[in-house]
Amino acid sequence: MPRLCRTFQTAPAAVPGDDTAKYLESGLTAEGFEAPDWLVPDIEDGTAPDMKSEAVDNVVDRLPALAPDFGGEIWPRVEWAHDDAEYRERGRSQIETLVAVAGDHLDGVVVPKVGRLEDVERAAVAVAETEREFGYDDGSIELAVIVETAPAVSDLPDIARLGETDRLAGLVFGPVDYTADLGGRSMDGERPRWSGLLERLSNEASAGGLVAIGGPFDRLFDERAGVTYYNAPGYADQVEREARIGLDGSWSLHPKQTAQANRVHMPTTAELESAVEKVEGFNEAKREGTGAVVLDGQMVDEATYRNFANTVQTVRAIDQAHPAQTAETYDGSLLERVRSVALDFG
Amino acid sequence: MPRLCRTFQTAPAAVPGDDTAKYLESGLTAEGFEAPDWLVPDIEDGTAPDMKSEAVDNVVDRLPALAPDFGGEIWPRVEWAHDDAEYRERGRSQIETLVAVAGDHLDGVVVPKVGRLEDVERAAVAVAETEREFGYDDGSIELAVIVETAPAVSDLPDIARLGETDRLAGLVFGPVDYTADLGGRSMDGERPRWSGLLERLSNEASAGGLVAIGGPFDRLFDERAGVTYYNAPGYADQVEREARIGLDGSWSLHPKQTAQANRVHMPTTAELESAVEKVEGFNEAKREGTGAVVLDGQMVDEATYRNFANTVQTVRAIDQAHPAQTAETYDGSLLERVRSVALDFG
Amino acid sequence: MPRLCRTFQTAPAAVPGDDTAKYLESGLTAEGFEAPDWLVPDIEDGTAPDMKSEAVDNVVDRLPALAPDFGGEIWPRVEWAHDDAEYRERGRSQIETLVAVAGDHLDGVVVPKVGRLEDVERAAVAVAETEREFGYDDGSIELAVIVETAPAVSDLPDIARLGETDRLAGLVFGPVDYTADLGGRSMDGERPRWSGLLERLSNEASAGGLVAIGGPFDRLFDERAGVTYYNAPGYADQVEREARIGLDGSWSLHPKQTAQANRVHMPTTAELESAVEKVEGFNEAKREGTGAVVLDGQMVDEATYRNFANTVQTVRAIDQAHPAQTAETYDGSLLERVRSVALDFG
Repeated sequence: MPRLCRTFQTAPAAVPGDDTAKYLESGLTAEGFEAPDWLVPDIEDGTAPDMKSEAVDNVVDRLPALAPDFGGEIWPRVEWAHDDAEYRERGRSQIETLVAVAGDHLDGVVVPKVGRLEDVERAAVAVAETEREFGYDDGSIELAVIVETAPAVSDLPDIARLGETDRLAGLVFGPVDYTADLGGRSMDGERPRWSGLLERLSNEASAGGLVAIGGPFDRLFDERAGVTYYNAPGYADQVEREARIGLDGSWSLHPKQTAQANRVHMPTTAELESAVEKVEGFNEAKREGTGAVVLDGQMVDEATYRNFANTVQTVRAIDQAHPAQTAETYDGSLLERVRSVALDFG
Repeated sequence: MPRLCRTFQTAPAAVPGDDTAKYLESGLTAEGFEAPDWLVPDIEDGTAPDMKSEAVDNVVDRLPALAPDFGGEIWPRVEWAHDDAEYRERGRSQIETLVAVAGDHLDGVVVPKVGRLEDVERAAVAVAETEREFGYDDGSIELAVIVETAPAVSDLPDIARLGETDRLAGLVFGPVDYTADLGGRSMDGERPRWSGLLERLSNEASAGGLVAIGGPFDRLFDERAGVTYYNAPGYADQVEREARIGLDGSWSLHPKQTAQANRVHMPTTAELESAVEKVEGFNEAKREGTGAVVLDGQMVDEATYRNFANTVQTVRAIDQAHPAQTAETYDGSLLERVRSVALDFG
Repeated sequence: MPRLCRTFQTAPAAVPGDDTAKYLESGLTAEGFEAPDWLVPDIEDGTAPDMKSEAVDNVVDRLPALAPDFGGEIWPRVEWAHDDAEYRERGRSQIETLVAVAGDHLDGVVVPKVGRLEDVERAAVAVAETEREFGYDDGSIELAVIVETAPAVSDLPDIARLGETDRLAGLVFGPVDYTADLGGRSMDGERPRWSGLLERLSNEASAGGLVAIGGPFDRLFDERAGVTYYNAPGYADQVEREARIGLDGSWSLHPKQTAQANRVHMPTTAELESAVEKVEGFNEAKREGTGAVVLDGQMVDEATYRNFANTVQTVRAIDQAHPAQTAETYDGSLLERVRSVALDFG
């Protein structure tokens, strides 16, 4: 069963005003498709420099009450920088506070702006030492890193291999810092898509057994003819591109984006129907002793079968974690076939 | 002279029915543009699980009679899996039978689903040991691998370097298993194109002195307004994309695809005319002591010259192996210039 | 302040005729936007085989008089080939003559057709030894390499790391030789774009602290309805693609291309206005204690801020080196804001 991370929603852990934890709380209490698979209380760039310590306080204060009823995983993002020891020191201290006070409610921590392999190993050590210090089992607090610097991308194959033996569990793309690091330009208001890199991120994550997540889409709102509207089409385009190349999930900055990405990262009804039909058809062909068969104009063999089986398994994982979401999306007889069809490999 | 592999046609080595070797036989006896440069008797995914041993029998039984008159190379695909010792054991045993009984007629074996460098080395050892066991010269049976898993892509530069010293001769892309391995999706019925990876495959093959081959196109037939037709345009688009970035050949699932890809991987008449003219013009300019010259609006120097010379050399290779194909494609005076023009480098 | 290399203009160092140094001289005396940031006297492919030694003579003869008033950097391109010792010997000897006679006027040398890491190290040694022999300080003559062979691309991450400790200062793409090396085809008259590779080149250059430069555009002229014209749109498209992904500059074959690329690699007025506004707005938001803010429909945080700051810093660098160019391009009040706005990170 694949690990669910359709949505990686960052929520500033402290914002100015009377209720500094309001986004953190709304993230932890969101319902239905607005509830992210991973909630990321953001102590880094989403929180102002002079509110960092209040941000940490908010997280450890709210988690005990709200985490138990939250249906997803909880992954705070701390400060870090491969080229600045002061940021790393702060990050380490934030990790300590988070684990010391609220370690029971954390699935892992997100470390941004990592550099070469050695720097990612340094972050892994910081988590491991903290875990040990506060009596948690080895590997109980996982690590996800944001890939957003040129040296991290240069070392990506080696970094991802940490997933084979270590606590690394996820690779997240950070396009904004990455574009700044490479000196890229948004010549017509759009940043480069970094398609080549995203392919590699998806590949290395799969090779290392890691979850892969796309970057934030910050053109939240658009304007036309004097009317400002939520930019749903722009975000959908990005999330679809990410899903197509095998990223497991997308970054969300807003509950509306979460509701969208949770849906886009579910197979469509047409995809699912086709997958179930092809799986059933190929099961039948194999019983009749055929290695490959043309179904509906497409040649189906063991390899295509694996793709259709993936679709079925993704829906099964969502169905198990969020049955209300699958019930709302697919009709009952299709869901029944999803639950009962045999998946035979080899 | 470049090694010809415009077409890599897989033929199931055993199919249900009275004549289980019918596709194998038709592949080995195809004529004209329908004859593939490489024929790949498929013992793996194209053959049903319970017909594997009949598939091996068919290959060793038919090759002695049919291989001598087949104009291309013969490369059976055996079973293998980087993550499953049972498949590797079966693959090893299939290689042994093929080499023991029909080694004289084999150019190499195709090993699918390889993983990291160590796994490709393991496949190379299996071939080397079998070769030695049955008294063949070292390197007489070559190896091509299908690049279709995340770990193989992660290690691609190291894997390709085996071509410098070892028996590895070809890299073949396997997009269907690869898409499944990365969890990619065919959201509108089309798989991702993996353009970044294909560029790297072409590069690493060239760096290691290997042949590079694209993946199968399985939308063999399409339907519109109730009419089902052979999907020639879809396949041509893919083969052209592959040719453009320097893949030596394309995968074929059907004699119609073979006839198409053999043609697309020949320079067009317009390309060839332009290449011959530029080569002749630059030869003349060099005799007059010019290092670069503008011919027909394009600046030509030693570097552009190499590209035009490539075009001429490709046609010379096809002309030598298949003079009927070049005679059918180009007019006689153009072919005469191709055969006689001087190619001077440096 | 970023190192300026918006334009890398090659000029054949010797051409047939009465005035064999005419392109070299016009490059060194060009004015305004036609003056390249880097001038590359070309002793390699732009110069005919029998004029190589005259080319070297022209360079060392003209530099003492013309270099002091040239506003950019001077980087001769010598001969070299990773797979041919004779070319390397010639290149080494050309480097020696250039440094011996005109070392005071050189910023570095450009070495083409390099191969794997070992070959680039060999080129670096050739420069280092020459430098020492003629009494120049270590590192005073830098090295840029043209990335145009499959083995160089295969080793790109390791080659770029030479920038961390060695004299390597720049990576330049050579698409024409590269396409020939991979056996790529210009099926409709256009070479492949190698987009995946260009992303990697930009990344590795940033990771190694190197300048990254795109390849030449050789369709200098186009023809329509019987009229031949300078192909400004074609070149602009390529330069914009290069700027977008963070290449620092573009290759120019002609003063008209230099004038174009110098302009494209400056932020547009719209980009600059938006950047200055966002920087000012976010400075204000930070003073009010906000970590992220929506400005003009776009979410701005530390990461987006870095991109806007890049734009401002690029204009500051051009403004310092070429105040006439910024004065001609932007209005005075905008330039004043560029010069005075605070750039606060973290």
